Amino acid sequence: MPDTRNDLMTTIVSLCKRRGFIFQSSEIYDGLNSCWDYGPLGVELKRNVKEAWWKAMVTTRRDIVGQDASILMHPRVWEASGHLQGFTDPLVDCRECRSRFRADHLEDTKTCPKCGGELTDARKFNLMFKTFMGPVEDRSATVYLRPETAQGIFVNFLNVQQASRLKLPFGIAQTGKSFRNEITPGNFTYRTREFEQMEMEFFCYPQDDEHWYEYWKNERFNWYIKNGIRNENLRLRDHEKDELAHYAKACVDVEYKFPFGWNELEGIANRTDFDLKKHSEFSGKTLAIFDEESKQHIFPYVIEPAAGADRATLAFLVDAYAVEGEGKNKRTILRFHPALSPIKAAVLPLVKRDGMPEKAEKIYNDILDNGIATFLDINLSIGRRYARQDEAGTPYCITVDSQSMEDDTVTIRRRDNREQFRVNAGSAVEQIRKELKEAGA
Amino acid sequence: MPDTRNDLMTTIVSLCKRRGFIFQSSEIYDGLNSCWDYGPLGVELKRNVKEAWWKAMVTTRRDIVGQDASILMHPRVWEASGHLQGFTDPLVDCRECRSRFRADHLEDTKTCPKCGGELTDARKFNLMFKTFMGPVEDRSATVYLRPETAQGIFVNFLNVQQASRLKLPFGIAQTGKSFRNEITPGNFTYRTREFEQMEMEFFCYPQDDEHWYEYWKNERFNWYIKNGIRNENLRLRDHEKDELAHYAKACVDVEYKFPFGWNELEGIANRTDFDLKKHSEFSGKTLAIFDEESKQHIFPYVIEPAAGADRATLAFLVDAYAVEGEGKNKRTILRFHPALSPIKAAVLPLVKRDGMPEKAEKIYNDILDNGIATFLDINLSIGRRYARQDEAGTPYCITVDSQSMEDDTVTIRRRDNREQFRVNAGSAVEQIRKELKEAGA
Repeated sequence: MPDTRNDLMTTIVSLCKRRGFIFQSSEIYDGLNSCWDYGPLGVELKRNVKEAWWKAMVTTRRDIVGQDASILMHPRVWEASGHLQGFTDPLVDCRECRSRFRADHLEDTKTCPKCGGELTDARKFNLMFKTFMGPVEDRSATVYLRPETAQGIFVNFLNVQQASRLKLPFGIAQTGKSFRNEITPGNFTYRTREFEQMEMEFFCYPQDDEHWYEYWKNERFNWYIKNGIRNENLRLRDHEKDELAHYAKACVDVEYKFPFGWNELEGIANRTDFDLKKHSEFSGKTLAIFDEESKQHIFPYVIEPAAGADRATLAFLVDAYAVEGEGKNKRTILRFHPALSPIKAAVLPLVKRDGMPEKAEKIYNDILDNGIATFLDINLSIGRRYARQDEAGTPYCITVDSQSMEDDTVTIRRRDNREQFRVNAGSAVEQIRKELKEAGA
Repeated sequence: MPDTRNDLMTTIVSLCKRRGFIFQSSEIYDGLNSCWDYGPLGVELKRNVKEAWWKAMVTTRRDIVGQDASILMHPRVWEASGHLQGFTDPLVDCRECRSRFRADHLEDTKTCPKCGGELTDARKFNLMFKTFMGPVEDRSATVYLRPETAQGIFVNFLNVQQASRLKLPFGIAQTGKSFRNEITPGNFTYRTREFEQMEMEFFCYPQDDEHWYEYWKNERFNWYIKNGIRNENLRLRDHEKDELAHYAKACVDVEYKFPFGWNELEGIANRTDFDLKKHSEFSGKTLAIFDEESKQHIFPYVIEPAAGADRATLAFLVDAYAVEGEGKNKRTILRFHPALSPIKAAVLPLVKRDGMPEKAEKIYNDILDNGIATFLDINLSIGRRYARQDEAGTPYCITVDSQSMEDDTVTIRRRDNREQFRVNAGSAVEQIRKELKEAGA
């Protein structure tokens, strides 16, 4: 059993591969540094995380709409936002061994921590990936992979506001991939060069910015708790003045206690009217909106809860992980909130004969017809199949055994306490639906 | 009313902007050629299209699992797949006016169609976008934005097969963005440089390839019909031998009759064992799997239905579009299949007083609690609000009027025939749920 923090991450990475949550990208070519692929269980887990976010932030909100902007945007967007100029890390090279470091990560900026050689002066390295659109590879053809989805919302601000007839305060939400050419990626899927964001820009009257900042700070903290993160592993940390991004008046991080330390899951920032004003200036098209109450054009303030889908998924994985019991009773389990579980109910015939597989298949089809994620598992011993479902984080297993063939009942097994009880086969789906509803899934 | 094909596309592009389906990307900076953003209705429509695909291809299939590979992959992947060498278009330049053309799109490859000037010889132009990972911009740091999601499936083949204990025949499915540096993008969202794919690789015994090819050809054709495309606007077109990609033994396109002509929505290809063998050769790790029946290692054959999420979304939009009636009764309507409609049921108080908004809000919350996409619209005249919902493709409107305040009934209006009927307010949700279920949504 893992007893140190690093061992715990190693164990989780290995479970992720074994059960098909997460694989190293291009593994057969020895991997691509810091890129990861989601396997069959992982893709469903991450879909559920994103779905829970979209439901909380868009579907159930009358004041927020969604959008989906493209990854490639006009290069002027990044001039206006300040990314082209200021989205940089300071880099130094070793003149001897050619190693490269982030200057702000070194304790001593004169000598190489690897070989002791002399270091160059620090120079600015822009974190945006660049590419060329069209057949000519020159400056005029240069475009960037977006480093954040937020700008796609700001440049569409008026189009969305007008098409949806939105009035202040209102929000625009988006999920999607962003790219940052990090010098030092690491910690599994925590810091990667390609990652998925879940961002929402909430536009409000300038004088209400502090109210909404507090509101979203609480909403977002509670979202993680509601979806299963344990209270003791989550905290809010206000940014110090010198940590603030150039566009922010205030910022607070929602941090999770990963095995590698407390780290940011999400930042909630008061971006003020910085972005809308910058884009107005650079595009020559005003992004102020006419306010019916004050009868004048105003630039709204923006409160931005910006979460990482991969980081959230990793936090839910780590927080759900547990090893319990001793000897023969020892098991590994992922205690996901049922809303996030890739499989909600697995159906298992006790043995592969006597009509049990057929009966199990009928129940499986019933569950499917009810739109509940399910899985029919026929091979291996029942113990090994329960173990697999525990490691997959499946909250309920339905087992068809010999008694089922006599009295048409089945057992339902609850993941967290291994409690089993019998219900009529015909009401198994209804029971699962009820359990899921009570669990808030 | 539009009477030519081009007018029709212009009208649809304008409706898409007005109602918030699709906007030009970075429009305030005069747009980025061939990139488009989905607005509040568009993002929900596209989400529903992808969800319908995932449900048909993964959730309800016991023989198919999902995955999600990263966009940036090891560059050797594209050597093995043949993309680095062969994924090219032939380009010619005009020596006079510097215009650039695809040689295979010109009738005469000697003179410029713009100015009559002399053209250069054709040269190969690779369609993959390239970028640099890490701080150095040289050859060793070059990576590519994937031009197809398929390769992410092939390189993960063994990891997925083993983690999910899959036996032939089985499939691995994936949705996600791909990028191709097209020389001549166009036709709204039809041909874009950044686009989203919905691909599934189905692995089968080599001797069964023709059976599965026919099977997927039918399945995929029927998926579009089931989701609302009219039969007369959809056809299958077999590729000629000289059209086939280098990896394909056979290929058939599902084509839709767009206003700009018959064009591919999806290709179903028999990729044989080309990719698995190539990756085995290039990586030195065999991707053959041990077959229990024949007691030997075999390379499965692959049948690939590869659809475009943006193209499918556009086809569903175009097919749903209709203008009907005359004079005061004239209306524009999007007859989406209810499964695809961004809003399933809108709730409209007849006027903004007498308790109607409050009663409407109660019904709206009821619908939300049942997980049905809804929208509460309070302002404007009832006629204009119905018109907006018709243009949004909302299949049902629930109206709270003065009779509602007396006898607690509401009207339900069906989009397609404007038929209205009354039900008890308390059973409105149940009625909507029943209508949606009957419509197959």
